[in-house]
Amino acid sequence: AIGYLVGEENRGLEYMFTMMNHARLAVGVEGIAVGERAYQHALEYAKARVQGREIGQRSGDRVTIIHHPDVRRMLLSMRAQNEAMRALAYFAAATLDKSKLHPNPGERRRSHGLLDLLTPIVKGWCTEQGVEVASTGVQVHGGMGFVEETGAAQYLRDARITTIYEGTTGIQANDLVGRKVGHEKGATALAVIAAMREIDARLAAGGAELASTRANLTEAVGGLEAATRWIVDAFPKNPKAAAGVSVPYLKLFGTVAGGWMMARAALIAREKLRQPDADREFLEAKLATARFYAEHELPRALPLAREVTGGAASVLALDPGRF
Amino acid sequence: AIGYLVGEENRGLEYMFTMMNHARLAVGVEGIAVGERAYQHALEYAKARVQGREIGQRSGDRVTIIHHPDVRRMLLSMRAQNEAMRALAYFAAATLDKSKLHPNPGERRRSHGLLDLLTPIVKGWCTEQGVEVASTGVQVHGGMGFVEETGAAQYLRDARITTIYEGTTGIQANDLVGRKVGHEKGATALAVIAAMREIDARLAAGGAELASTRANLTEAVGGLEAATRWIVDAFPKNPKAAAGVSVPYLKLFGTVAGGWMMARAALIAREKLRQPDADREFLEAKLATARFYAEHELPRALPLAREVTGGAASVLALDPGRF
Repeated sequence: AIGYLVGEENRGLEYMFTMMNHARLAVGVEGIAVGERAYQHALEYAKARVQGREIGQRSGDRVTIIHHPDVRRMLLSMRAQNEAMRALAYFAAATLDKSKLHPNPGERRRSHGLLDLLTPIVKGWCTEQGVEVASTGVQVHGGMGFVEETGAAQYLRDARITTIYEGTTGIQANDLVGRKVGHEKGATALAVIAAMREIDARLAAGGAELASTRANLTEAVGGLEAATRWIVDAFPKNPKAAAGVSVPYLKLFGTVAGGWMMARAALIAREKLRQPDADREFLEAKLATARFYAEHELPRALPLAREVTGGAASVLALDPGRF
Repeated sequence: AIGYLVGEENRGLEYMFTMMNHARLAVGVEGIAVGERAYQHALEYAKARVQGREIGQRSGDRVTIIHHPDVRRMLLSMRAQNEAMRALAYFAAATLDKSKLHPNPGERRRSHGLLDLLTPIVKGWCTEQGVEVASTGVQVHGGMGFVEETGAAQYLRDARITTIYEGTTGIQANDLVGRKVGHEKGATALAVIAAMREIDARLAAGGAELASTRANLTEAVGGLEAATRWIVDAFPKNPKAAAGVSVPYLKLFGTVAGGWMMARAALIAREKLRQPDADREFLEAKLATARFYAEHELPRALPLAREVTGGAASVLALDPGRF
């Protein structure tokens, strides 16, 4: 065997991380891609499969299952999660471009720091959500979801590896809490939180239509800030405690960042709907998924924040020998 | 072919439900069983697999992965969820026995009503949790979890059918919201909530040790009551809205009932620890899992309650034709 030296000596691990950071973003996008395909597949099935009558109807025609409220809830949860994840991944991709190509060196440096923060979140959160979305896709199919010929189960199997390879969710969370938030005392994370608050403040002008989005985003961002400050404080003093709640912190950051992206999309959709040639169907659907995300996904943020700020002791309460 | 009439004419569906109710409880227990086996399997692996050093150590011996805080968090979450589910299933089984064998006819009738309420919860919640626990088991294994010879993935595949057969989670939730809570104006559900409050009040005597359990249970029971009253009100007026948030309601009920069972267990463990011949290891571990459940699982209750009381409109916002 002949070995070739790639680049300079003793910089291999550093080079490997260049590859690894791209791979992490790519696997995050893989979570989204599987989630999107699982949604399209489940939607097609829900529009074709006839079962039961509309709720409240005792006679008359049987309907396709997309008419059943719980099936619509499942489909909307898949769609809203996919849209939030995709928006966050695009935001990260634009940040990657800026970190390389922005004419201002300060902006390049700032974008580089932001990308470092976003990378474990895109990898960890989008893959965890991808598993959930693909599993919901199986559920929309009912018994047919477990029958291989429908293909729904394959998406779940495909999604299930994404939270493992290129670093498990636990490894991404350790990176986020240690090398990112802990290491720089939360500077970039708190800058992101400030950007979230700008969007949140703009929601106030949205009136009743965006009221629940605003209420939920305000609360979620507050939880993220409290959790971030807890991590900054705990990491140097008690790194085991910080590691013990690192995955809830990563999921929290992803959940709130998704809400931020959906709120931004809702504001743009609302603005564009005023134009005479607006694509109403697309924009109104965007408002619907943004509201669904705010009312059904964002409320998960506060309990995650509480797991971070108050749950580390109970993670470490049972010594390894006593399991 | 020769057909035999079993029982009386026109009562077949009623007879079928006798079988079906047993089957629903049995499938709920299947969710727990797969979850328990997944936990044992993951625990064995975490105690054997050597990877990395203790957090904060840059040299010295490498350790088994059970020493890593996030692995302990995953194992404790599996264990706490399994214990909560098992306690609820045993409570349902004791209620089944009372409904048949209690000497007092009023108590038999009351137990029958309670069992009717608990059956869709045991079926729906314990199977949904079983899928989550089995998936966490794969995650504890890391890359090895995706390798068939470790057996971890088989538990997830086995668990995945349990939320589907003998009635999907959506069907269980419709039964809970319609035939149970809605039909009897929440009478049995509110009686269960009152019983939860009795345990909650007794936690006050537990001092600092049970303080976080009490705080989280009080909040969760409050959420369950608000959601129950919302369902009672919405079901006759707007059955589609009630159906749209029926699965969050079922998950809410299971989550809070699990916390109720774990709080009860913590009170008993605390009492027994005062006895000289107490099995300290078992009882202290029970206190640890009860606290973990209160701090990491119970906080999920409030967002589920808010999905119920405030999320129905966004479930139904997008017409089937606009998906």
